Amino acid sequence: MPYTNLNDAIARLDEIEATASAYGHAMGVLSLDAATAAPLGSAEGRGKTMAVLSSVIYELAASDDTRELTKYLSDHADELDPVHRRQAEIRKKDCEQLTRIPQEEYVAYNVLLNKAEGIWRVAKQNNDFAAFAPTLSEIVAFNRKFAGYYDAEKEPYDALLNEYEEGLTMQTLDAFFARLRGVIVPLVHAISEKEQPDTAFLEQSYPIEGQKKLAKYLMEVIGLDPNACTIAESEHPFTCGFNNKDVRITTHYYENHPTFSIFSTIHEGGHALYELGVEDAYNGTCLTGGASMGIHESQSRFYENIIGRSLEFIELIFPKMQEIFPEQLAGVTAYDLYRAVNKAQPSLVRTESDELTYALHIMIRYEIEKQLIAGTLEVADVPAEWNRLYKEYLGVDVPSDTQGCLQDSHWSGGSIGYFPSYALGSAYGAQMKHVMESELGPIAPCIARGEIGTITAWLREHIHRFGNFKKPAAIFEDACGKFDPDYFANYLQEKYSKLYEL
Amino acid sequence: MPYTNLNDAIARLDEIEATASAYGHAMGVLSLDAATAAPLGSAEGRGKTMAVLSSVIYELAASDDTRELTKYLSDHADELDPVHRRQAEIRKKDCEQLTRIPQEEYVAYNVLLNKAEGIWRVAKQNNDFAAFAPTLSEIVAFNRKFAGYYDAEKEPYDALLNEYEEGLTMQTLDAFFARLRGVIVPLVHAISEKEQPDTAFLEQSYPIEGQKKLAKYLMEVIGLDPNACTIAESEHPFTCGFNNKDVRITTHYYENHPTFSIFSTIHEGGHALYELGVEDAYNGTCLTGGASMGIHESQSRFYENIIGRSLEFIELIFPKMQEIFPEQLAGVTAYDLYRAVNKAQPSLVRTESDELTYALHIMIRYEIEKQLIAGTLEVADVPAEWNRLYKEYLGVDVPSDTQGCLQDSHWSGGSIGYFPSYALGSAYGAQMKHVMESELGPIAPCIARGEIGTITAWLREHIHRFGNFKKPAAIFEDACGKFDPDYFANYLQEKYSKLYEL
Repeated sequence: MPYTNLNDAIARLDEIEATASAYGHAMGVLSLDAATAAPLGSAEGRGKTMAVLSSVIYELAASDDTRELTKYLSDHADELDPVHRRQAEIRKKDCEQLTRIPQEEYVAYNVLLNKAEGIWRVAKQNNDFAAFAPTLSEIVAFNRKFAGYYDAEKEPYDALLNEYEEGLTMQTLDAFFARLRGVIVPLVHAISEKEQPDTAFLEQSYPIEGQKKLAKYLMEVIGLDPNACTIAESEHPFTCGFNNKDVRITTHYYENHPTFSIFSTIHEGGHALYELGVEDAYNGTCLTGGASMGIHESQSRFYENIIGRSLEFIELIFPKMQEIFPEQLAGVTAYDLYRAVNKAQPSLVRTESDELTYALHIMIRYEIEKQLIAGTLEVADVPAEWNRLYKEYLGVDVPSDTQGCLQDSHWSGGSIGYFPSYALGSAYGAQMKHVMESELGPIAPCIARGEIGTITAWLREHIHRFGNFKKPAAIFEDACGKFDPDYFANYLQEKYSKLYEL
Repeated sequence: MPYTNLNDAIARLDEIEATASAYGHAMGVLSLDAATAAPLGSAEGRGKTMAVLSSVIYELAASDDTRELTKYLSDHADELDPVHRRQAEIRKKDCEQLTRIPQEEYVAYNVLLNKAEGIWRVAKQNNDFAAFAPTLSEIVAFNRKFAGYYDAEKEPYDALLNEYEEGLTMQTLDAFFARLRGVIVPLVHAISEKEQPDTAFLEQSYPIEGQKKLAKYLMEVIGLDPNACTIAESEHPFTCGFNNKDVRITTHYYENHPTFSIFSTIHEGGHALYELGVEDAYNGTCLTGGASMGIHESQSRFYENIIGRSLEFIELIFPKMQEIFPEQLAGVTAYDLYRAVNKAQPSLVRTESDELTYALHIMIRYEIEKQLIAGTLEVADVPAEWNRLYKEYLGVDVPSDTQGCLQDSHWSGGSIGYFPSYALGSAYGAQMKHVMESELGPIAPCIARGEIGTITAWLREHIHRFGNFKKPAAIFEDACGKFDPDYFANYLQEKYSKLYEL
């Protein structure tokens, strides 16, 4: 129906927001269940359910009514309060974008993704890339097609990047990554000539029950309210938020690799703190949750690295670790642990890599995604290209696809163009630290006293509370000024020079 | 629209079935999540989501279109294949029943139930009946009102009973329970004069990790496919099935009470085997899942008691138990364990009670529910009445509402009229055992050899596969003839006379 009255239009917008939130919540819980609790055989039934729900979501977002409504609201933007104005803006953009994707393709893609998670999981377990390749080919084909729907003017991969971080382009990233390589490669080289810290004590058996206890403790230390955030287990750690009172994180426990669950818990905890810090008023609307993947990763990596891998944080949690693992940590000092968890060394698996070499992993995935979407690399050739780039960038030989191109769940989830935001997030975080310290003074003493809440309060005030109300670039610039990768470069330079006495 | 073409009508029925299944699945996963993984603060957001979804479910089930469709199909029942005929019959009954409940009340009730679980959980933890009482009053009020909508001709409690077991009445139950009391009370009396088995070894610390391992083993022993059924933890154990490839069970682990998780796992496993055994063709329709609560409980209690508490089963699993808990079970024999898990003694908590006194717990809840629904008992007086009846029926003093009227989640879930089906199920099961053995010979040797699959195959053939395709009474009578509580009475008499050498 044509809209003629502003109050009616706003009421309809509120209704769409509430309904879309409800379906998003249901879909989110189905996905969460799939990754944490469901039996493998559940995929078919869940696929049918998600097809029904996603078709309703599609209808709602892309209907003629929504098109007319958002057009009307856009024409009357000046008369709207800022919250409804932003909601209408986001809905309008979504509607325009979605209506470029035919509904059958949208539904088929969601059905595909639902199956893909299980197929990838089994393929990874069995080191069987061929079993995943046909699914990945379909996902790539959908993404290439969708990129055209998103923005036919842009290079397809730029259109995908833009989905995760508005305005991000290959041109920006090529320059950003070149700048980072210029800092990281010499550092890695210099470090390779120094003695490495002992990490053998982290390769003993750390019973999973103890790791679970430690994860709960870490959630408490960083200030996650257990009435608002719980933890579960999944193959690949992730965060899944439904509103600012209900956010879930997951981790994976490896008996001989306790730092994986420690740092993934803190990382996902950072995502969770972000979503829990969004204004109450945005619950049940498209303004809750985060502004972009880049901002999201800036928070997760801030907690994981800037806080979690600092000497002060390690000193803070070390007594508890010794209490839980007295035998494993006998004769180990907090400083030993600090050096061990900051060991910088080229490795195979992104999520287990150190803060310094991490960005190199991102660059490799970025290079491969660029080629897949440009059509210059076949899916069948991904393992070979992956292994070649690991040799070139990191100097390591990849012994299996399980530890190679099958390591991450992102592609099976359809997230192509997502990875660069990880590196961007790290760089955002370093600049936030700089600004925060210029206001609060050094944060190291806060961490030492266990006052993570002071840091979170700053982030909440300047970043978290806005949710999706402001555009990511505006949130960042209002808080930190113009983005400058030098802060991150300097942070890495300073931290690793000190750690390795370069 | 008026229906004039049978094929169109069938196509619309198929569509309604698929859509209703999808929404049911989503609601089920939201509830499962609430009970197993969600933080407490999630209730409000989930309530809003469930309000949106349940309003769609209501629309779908109770719309004018569904009314016209099911009337048309009912008029053409002779021309339908048996599966569509039964689907149409169930949908017609639902539609008629639901349209008697005003939509606002239906939605408000679902919102209430969503909050109730959390309120009950906290009240139970804090032994604070007063905190749950207002919610329970609302639930009772809704049920009294709904009973009138279901069938205004019937006594309200009969109308509620009928929801869980078609045709069940207070008249039948009063007679059935009187018959049971006549067997159980003398047995309990005779046993009270005999020496009781030693159960002290079951009150030591059994670390929860070991109990979890044992639960997984038990699921394997009874034949649950891990690709179709997983286990989680919740306050109160339950089963939740989405289709015959995806059924979940939950349990609760108490460190000093390992038999709780053991027998609740087998009990819920029985429910799960039932739902997994339904015909593939019924997935995604209202014919999947079980036929009634009585038939469902007959299966859960068959696995829990007739199989699980048999000497042969205990002998079968005992080596694994000793392997997991070598210290706790040092010097204990399988026969000691068998006697311990069959110790018959009046107690406080239904789910921990023995097979003999169990029905007395049911009778107490039945008496209280009858009075609540008749309006002759106020919610505020439930604890006093509960405690009085426990003294009268079981001779025990109830020390706290946590172990008294707050022990079970059923009321918070709105299940009033459900409890009697537990006792009915036990009696059904004893008669099934009789018929099964007349065909297969004694089942004890099967159990001894670990061939639970032989028993499951019989149950699948005669009970499980029908799902909701036949009415519960027809399923039972086709398999076992007319229901006769004597089989259960004789089973109890024989088992306990032997156990206690009466």
